[in-house]
Amino acid sequence: MLPQVAGGLPRIEPREEILDIAAGLFVDRGFAATSTRDIAEAVGIRQASLYFHFANKEEILGELLQRSIRPTVDKIKRIEALAAETGAGPDVLLHVLVVLDVRTLAAAPRNAGVLSRLPEVQRKDVFEPFGSARGELRDAYARLGTQITADRSAAMTPDRDLLGMLLLQLVEVVIGMRSCGHPITPAIEAIVAASCLRVCLADQACIDEAAVRSASLIGSLEA
Amino acid sequence: MLPQVAGGLPRIEPREEILDIAAGLFVDRGFAATSTRDIAEAVGIRQASLYFHFANKEEILGELLQRSIRPTVDKIKRIEALAAETGAGPDVLLHVLVVLDVRTLAAAPRNAGVLSRLPEVQRKDVFEPFGSARGELRDAYARLGTQITADRSAAMTPDRDLLGMLLLQLVEVVIGMRSCGHPITPAIEAIVAASCLRVCLADQACIDEAAVRSASLIGSLEA
Repeated sequence: MLPQVAGGLPRIEPREEILDIAAGLFVDRGFAATSTRDIAEAVGIRQASLYFHFANKEEILGELLQRSIRPTVDKIKRIEALAAETGAGPDVLLHVLVVLDVRTLAAAPRNAGVLSRLPEVQRKDVFEPFGSARGELRDAYARLGTQITADRSAAMTPDRDLLGMLLLQLVEVVIGMRSCGHPITPAIEAIVAASCLRVCLADQACIDEAAVRSASLIGSLEA
Repeated sequence: MLPQVAGGLPRIEPREEILDIAAGLFVDRGFAATSTRDIAEAVGIRQASLYFHFANKEEILGELLQRSIRPTVDKIKRIEALAAETGAGPDVLLHVLVVLDVRTLAAAPRNAGVLSRLPEVQRKDVFEPFGSARGELRDAYARLGTQITADRSAAMTPDRDLLGMLLLQLVEVVIGMRSCGHPITPAIEAIVAASCLRVCLADQACIDEAAVRSASLIGSLEA
């Protein structure tokens, strides 16, 4: 996949290398304490070359944040369209969404999900696109979750807002796991998805069936 | 509750005021970008007066972090002792632990739980006491959680490690809610506790009973 240099060693695209090294510096030193000069030095390029790829460090962090969420958010419409196309219920669709979200967080370079917790990200307008992508994802969780709880009646059922936050929160366990060096296996994906369905009051028979249907739908989404 | 000054206005203890204002600065500017000088200036005292209360800014952040977790961790042994004293099962004990943890996070000054996400906290040895308190809490969740799942058999049951992380993660929804300005009501406490029990495969009858018993046990713990 990677371009080869003369010596035969794989070469990383400069843009990817900047993102990777900047992510490490932001996590290690904090965003405020890292300059574009620090990043350029760590990559081993001139600052002018860095500016060829990114206007400033905010743009670098913005792109890292997007990589931890955009691949999931971009699939929400297609996932929800599966209801009409295949007759899949909200339990199956939630399972699909959780598994794909877990995979996005597991694949984000340098566990970029950690960066979403930097205080700057909550505050600066320049990161608003990330905040609104996160809002879209939370809404999708809330929408599917309330469709599932609506069919079930029980005391202490989370309302729409809280359900969206609880599901988003549960899936982000992946960020903490990666921070501790835990591999994100298919078994973990399945357990996180099952846990989300349990929070929506789904019973085990529903979870078992959702897991089977979700696997085949994800195959078709990715085909 | 607060001491009154001559003019009749409530006065905050200087130590509390330093903690409160420092927490705001750490969240707004980041930890690295805040000096003890900035904190003293914002409080309106001399730096020497600040040093009378805290040796450095690490000590201030350390105390803020402890306030978001210590009140819960200090009760773990007494909660687990309730099993022998009252015959309460692990479902009831988990309910008690979750409700008390939600209350600690809800009461922490300036939503200090947010500060646990600062990159410095994961990295610096000086914050190790917070890391180990968090480890103790996760272990307690894992211990009680696996006692609950052990009585139930189902596919996709989280193992001990993952269960501890999932439960800790769910309860920390309170931090995100406070960041968005949501009040943490008794209804929220009950729903978060119910959600934790659901992740441990508890059914609704078990949750309803745990909620009732938990309320009276918390009353006796706090008496």
